[in-house]
Amino acid sequence: MHFAFDETTTELIAKLEAFMDEAVYPAEAEAAEQIETLYAEDRWDPPAVLDGLKEQARERGLWNFFLAGHPEEGGLTNLQYAPLAEITGRSIQLAPAALNCAAPDTGNMEVLTMFGTPEQKEQWLRPLLDGQIRSAFAMTEPDVASSDATNIGLSIVRDGDEYVINGRKWWITGAMNPNCRVFIVMGKTDPSAERHRQQSMILVPRDTPGLEVVRGMHVFGYHDRDHGGHAELRFTDVRVPASNLIGGEGEGFAIAQARLGPGRIHHCMRSIGIAERAVEYMCERALSRTTFGKPIAQQGVVQDWIAESRVRLEQLRLLTLKTAWLMDTVGNRGAHKEIQAIKIATPQTVEWILDKAIQVHGAGGLSQDFPLAEMFAGIRTLRFADGPDEVHKASLARAELKKYAVRG
Amino acid sequence: MHFAFDETTTELIAKLEAFMDEAVYPAEAEAAEQIETLYAEDRWDPPAVLDGLKEQARERGLWNFFLAGHPEEGGLTNLQYAPLAEITGRSIQLAPAALNCAAPDTGNMEVLTMFGTPEQKEQWLRPLLDGQIRSAFAMTEPDVASSDATNIGLSIVRDGDEYVINGRKWWITGAMNPNCRVFIVMGKTDPSAERHRQQSMILVPRDTPGLEVVRGMHVFGYHDRDHGGHAELRFTDVRVPASNLIGGEGEGFAIAQARLGPGRIHHCMRSIGIAERAVEYMCERALSRTTFGKPIAQQGVVQDWIAESRVRLEQLRLLTLKTAWLMDTVGNRGAHKEIQAIKIATPQTVEWILDKAIQVHGAGGLSQDFPLAEMFAGIRTLRFADGPDEVHKASLARAELKKYAVRG
Amino acid sequence: MHFAFDETTTELIAKLEAFMDEAVYPAEAEAAEQIETLYAEDRWDPPAVLDGLKEQARERGLWNFFLAGHPEEGGLTNLQYAPLAEITGRSIQLAPAALNCAAPDTGNMEVLTMFGTPEQKEQWLRPLLDGQIRSAFAMTEPDVASSDATNIGLSIVRDGDEYVINGRKWWITGAMNPNCRVFIVMGKTDPSAERHRQQSMILVPRDTPGLEVVRGMHVFGYHDRDHGGHAELRFTDVRVPASNLIGGEGEGFAIAQARLGPGRIHHCMRSIGIAERAVEYMCERALSRTTFGKPIAQQGVVQDWIAESRVRLEQLRLLTLKTAWLMDTVGNRGAHKEIQAIKIATPQTVEWILDKAIQVHGAGGLSQDFPLAEMFAGIRTLRFADGPDEVHKASLARAELKKYAVRG
Amino acid sequence: MHFAFDETTTELIAKLEAFMDEAVYPAEAEAAEQIETLYAEDRWDPPAVLDGLKEQARERGLWNFFLAGHPEEGGLTNLQYAPLAEITGRSIQLAPAALNCAAPDTGNMEVLTMFGTPEQKEQWLRPLLDGQIRSAFAMTEPDVASSDATNIGLSIVRDGDEYVINGRKWWITGAMNPNCRVFIVMGKTDPSAERHRQQSMILVPRDTPGLEVVRGMHVFGYHDRDHGGHAELRFTDVRVPASNLIGGEGEGFAIAQARLGPGRIHHCMRSIGIAERAVEYMCERALSRTTFGKPIAQQGVVQDWIAESRVRLEQLRLLTLKTAWLMDTVGNRGAHKEIQAIKIATPQTVEWILDKAIQVHGAGGLSQDFPLAEMFAGIRTLRFADGPDEVHKASLARAELKKYAVRG
Repeated sequence: MHFAFDETTTELIAKLEAFMDEAVYPAEAEAAEQIETLYAEDRWDPPAVLDGLKEQARERGLWNFFLAGHPEEGGLTNLQYAPLAEITGRSIQLAPAALNCAAPDTGNMEVLTMFGTPEQKEQWLRPLLDGQIRSAFAMTEPDVASSDATNIGLSIVRDGDEYVINGRKWWITGAMNPNCRVFIVMGKTDPSAERHRQQSMILVPRDTPGLEVVRGMHVFGYHDRDHGGHAELRFTDVRVPASNLIGGEGEGFAIAQARLGPGRIHHCMRSIGIAERAVEYMCERALSRTTFGKPIAQQGVVQDWIAESRVRLEQLRLLTLKTAWLMDTVGNRGAHKEIQAIKIATPQTVEWILDKAIQVHGAGGLSQDFPLAEMFAGIRTLRFADGPDEVHKASLARAELKKYAVRG
Repeated sequence: MHFAFDETTTELIAKLEAFMDEAVYPAEAEAAEQIETLYAEDRWDPPAVLDGLKEQARERGLWNFFLAGHPEEGGLTNLQYAPLAEITGRSIQLAPAALNCAAPDTGNMEVLTMFGTPEQKEQWLRPLLDGQIRSAFAMTEPDVASSDATNIGLSIVRDGDEYVINGRKWWITGAMNPNCRVFIVMGKTDPSAERHRQQSMILVPRDTPGLEVVRGMHVFGYHDRDHGGHAELRFTDVRVPASNLIGGEGEGFAIAQARLGPGRIHHCMRSIGIAERAVEYMCERALSRTTFGKPIAQQGVVQDWIAESRVRLEQLRLLTLKTAWLMDTVGNRGAHKEIQAIKIATPQTVEWILDKAIQVHGAGGLSQDFPLAEMFAGIRTLRFADGPDEVHKASLARAELKKYAVRG
Repeated sequence: MHFAFDETTTELIAKLEAFMDEAVYPAEAEAAEQIETLYAEDRWDPPAVLDGLKEQARERGLWNFFLAGHPEEGGLTNLQYAPLAEITGRSIQLAPAALNCAAPDTGNMEVLTMFGTPEQKEQWLRPLLDGQIRSAFAMTEPDVASSDATNIGLSIVRDGDEYVINGRKWWITGAMNPNCRVFIVMGKTDPSAERHRQQSMILVPRDTPGLEVVRGMHVFGYHDRDHGGHAELRFTDVRVPASNLIGGEGEGFAIAQARLGPGRIHHCMRSIGIAERAVEYMCERALSRTTFGKPIAQQGVVQDWIAESRVRLEQLRLLTLKTAWLMDTVGNRGAHKEIQAIKIATPQTVEWILDKAIQVHGAGGLSQDFPLAEMFAGIRTLRFADGPDEVHKASLARAELKKYAVRG
Repeated sequence: MHFAFDETTTELIAKLEAFMDEAVYPAEAEAAEQIETLYAEDRWDPPAVLDGLKEQARERGLWNFFLAGHPEEGGLTNLQYAPLAEITGRSIQLAPAALNCAAPDTGNMEVLTMFGTPEQKEQWLRPLLDGQIRSAFAMTEPDVASSDATNIGLSIVRDGDEYVINGRKWWITGAMNPNCRVFIVMGKTDPSAERHRQQSMILVPRDTPGLEVVRGMHVFGYHDRDHGGHAELRFTDVRVPASNLIGGEGEGFAIAQARLGPGRIHHCMRSIGIAERAVEYMCERALSRTTFGKPIAQQGVVQDWIAESRVRLEQLRLLTLKTAWLMDTVGNRGAHKEIQAIKIATPQTVEWILDKAIQVHGAGGLSQDFPLAEMFAGIRTLRFADGPDEVHKASLARAELKKYAVRG
């Protein structure tokens, strides 16, 4: 056991930090303005500064880190990627997308890498890996608890050389972005099959007739226009070629499971970066703001928050790193319990830190003048993402109890 | 000691509940649509349904309850008003304004009632009491901790028969509404005077040259357009007649203090109504939503949240009611500690309940499909309003310690 | 609604406070020494100072306040008794017993008053009301969850003119005290009857053959010798006359229910007094202890604890008082939900305050030099008393949900 | 970075677990009885079973692991020792002492190893390393905040070839044990010297005239007789040879600092073992106890506690391991912040888990029938040990703030 990063990681951290300092942080103010304009003009494409950042990142060799097992595309191990993903979380609206490491595309690229046909890879994976298009993953439905994937309602019915799709989805992140060219859609091809063999995944190009982008869901008052919002979709007799199926019929559940692990840990890594940025904001504000004759930084309660933030964050990061290491060594299934644990721990820790960082800023901390409230909104959604924390806790508890039941 | 409301209150509760059931709740959906349009059209006036509600409320005798000491205008005692204010909190975007009991106008009407000249009353108080115009209270400044009112920067300088005003304000609630016709502005007339005698308050009509409404501050992405937003204001050589001063020079701090007590308790009362509405949403969702084969309402963790919500809310309400009773019997100063206590207790309790209500709703709970996230945003601001909780806690602690210091 | 105590209460508060100041507090140090001796000599009778305090209390007319509905014995309404019980909680080892208002005798006296035969009253109630003997209530069993009274195992079998009792009990508070002369024992007379008609209560004198006092249960290492400990009891063919039955066969469950409400609220009232004493200790320590050059009282975190303590305690007291008022006006059943609410709220609030008071004292706060750790241990048990909090929360949640289920 | 233990550690874990299973756990019941007898007979020596366990442990090569840097005595690196210390924490009353790895002797042996003269090593270190005698560390004083070591009051005055010692100490763990043959005493040799050069440490044999063991301090109701209690000591003209000084005059503070780091991390490691044992108790109880017709393990709230326990514990362990690794690689000073962080995190996490484990057990969980309440009491003291958490948090916050102050 030891706790130092390997040489590759250390070098990439330095390169990435240079990129953040030289390009990303300086672009944040302009991005904020461009995003404000997106709202005003009711547009859903990313802020214009992103294009330049993507170009620079690729030139600097900071690209596609997320794709574990595929060094030829830039992919690192999970453990190598973890501290880099964290750093991108510090500028959550720009950096992950700049490095082509943003959800939900990352998961979609993994799916296509693992399960796509050569044609699917050529048509969709290549431009995704090159950052030319974006994609979305359409699984959550308004009428079904998202923690229970076997329950899905959207139907995918074979009709000759085509599949016909009918149903509704919502919270489809990224789908409002017009450059989101393709959706991976989860639905049921055979409701009479065994419980985990009813589902299939299929590629649906954005412009397919019958596919309607109904509206963007808000999170608190944010639309998340910078990363393509969260769409409600309606599928009415949407027809795609049978060759658009990913894997075989009935493999949808298994593919979804394979997709989940990395997706969750990436969220956690980035969230730790969000929290570090929040601690930075908190400390800088505490040092610069004076009330009743002394800097806030000298107030005992504020010091308590700062210390607690540090203590909680160090623990959370280590569990995330260990989970990454487990994924690399025993696989995503072997790391299942740890993935659940960080999925539970991350939002509660980071939300707590953001709340205190906001409080140190006064009302301004809730406003558009600081990114803290928007960070809070984003983190708050993680307590539901792929099922609420409570479902994951119950599952983790059953695993724990099983140890003793067996022994007893 | 006894815990039943008097007859007047009981009757008014019944009348108000009828109004809520017959008019307010049914109007909520339409209001939500109108508010969405306000955003889209970048408008800041209230939703159109409000006019009809105001008319109805006044006809039903549900008007100006807040104005303690002035039964001729509809005013009740604080204790009588408390349960009614709570009920209006259940439909926070419509009901308080419908009854002409919405902040910040209530505080402004109190100020004018207590300290206004007959001319000021005629010109501004009368239309406010009649619900014809709205008003704002401009105290908070961007560069100064709002917990420290003696620190204010805006200058009010006498020049012949006029005062000349220069400075900046922000978080001026209601000021974006074009029907907000007048601002009560707090500034310094004599920076060399004794610490609490430097400040004065002055009336500034909206259209006065030099007064610039810069922008609306956001709260978690919300603009709060339904109640006129929260403006940033810039005053550049703004001139008003000397007769616009409220009270005398140097009385600003004292007037602000007089204004605070009722304002705080009204917020707390309404917040309890918000929490009750959230409990209702939580229970209804828990009963109607099924996961893994049984209603969420049967899950132990959800039951724990519901029970805790009830236990906390009952305690909070009683402390608010006792505080109202103290204000009625020993005055606002005599109730100072209790007002601080509810100011501290209310947001932490109600925020906790809202968080759980949201969690029971899944991601939808954060979206525009339910009012819960917007309620959360509103309550979150109370942890800063007139100074962050931490300042009030320190003050309360010193008062507590004093008891023992004297004795020891 | 109003929040002032009636004249009777106000006068009794003054008399009780005088008694506390003149007699009870000054006796605490001696009592502590006597209790230490009890441990060393393995004795279980109360500290000797108690006798004098009882005599004085009775002379001052501070006696049997708890017996609601029986002013001829000194009984007050629940609302009148509440603030007095709170004051006795400030010196929890001495004051409740000094006023003959200590558990479990209070509940036993209520049972005998309501359900006892004239002979039972003569033999047991009279000496209890006169403070000559003590009693215990034997309900909890080691093998059965105490939250589920229908599950009781001890058997009470009719045999001619006698009942024969067999079974085990534990946590029988007061039973180690040799002056605890009688036990009210709950058991099953008819296991085949309807679920709530199987149980009966019966009087068992301490010296009855076959009744064995096995050991005292500890609580965090404390034996609670001052109030007779918590005994484990074994009943082996214990025979008592049939006339010792309280009420009729099958009435045990109903009697237990009638006994619970007042018992719970008395615990809550006294616990608030414990918390107030803890706040007093916390403030006095904070004012007198200096670290790093300034009194602890000036540390922000300590001020935060003191303020939070005050805010939570005020709310808790009001809910307890309202519950007392409901018991007086709509009866114990009518106040059922509120009794559950204070049963849940009290230990969590008071435990939190004690924890902080201890923390302010440093390691000494956990030791025999201050009463805080022993208070903590006592309060901690309340989270289990008559069933763990979790059972009460689930019940309260179901009641809350029912409101909406009916409506929906 | 990787997260697997090295081979040495893995083998030692297996050997230690075998010892626990074969010898330690089976001895716990007997130890509990013997400890009860110690209380009854007012004795302070360890339970008799310990001797046999020590013999066995030494034979098995499980001895003196703690002594980092001294493999010839059995010492391991901190990182190797960490998981072993954790395992000993599972049987906290027996295992650490059985392996000669119990506080405070471990710290004392470190001090003598690093700073002792050959004579001091021969006389005291050798028998300590061989487990023949015990020792104590006398630093804390009743009148001085223990967080502020510069403040110490006990005086050590040179008088010819002797030092004369006067003063008071308390909370001197282990000192009630008659086999505790020597105390390392911290006092002031030169109150006029520079702040951190006033203190010295000196060896005082137990039987030195003038040294009075006044009493044992209790923790809650426990005396901790199994590990020699916590003594109050009075030194009245206690004379020892000048050669008993450890290091030189004025080096006391530096020696104390050197002693603290390992001591703190050992406590944390063992505490994690305590928490794991508590989780085991919690799960076994939850599986075996049935209420209202189903095992407690199926209750959502209990599952929530179990999952949270696991999530928090995994994070805490990793931070402790990383801290051990830092101590091994960059030294105790280099790991200062991390040592503070685990010092803060450990008691709050473990206390929370113990509280829930107790709650699952009902009232029995607080009693002598389970070790949980005594574990709680022990962990609770860690929130004060070498200064309250609040002092460490303030220090950690200042370090955090410094990063940004420098940069800003």
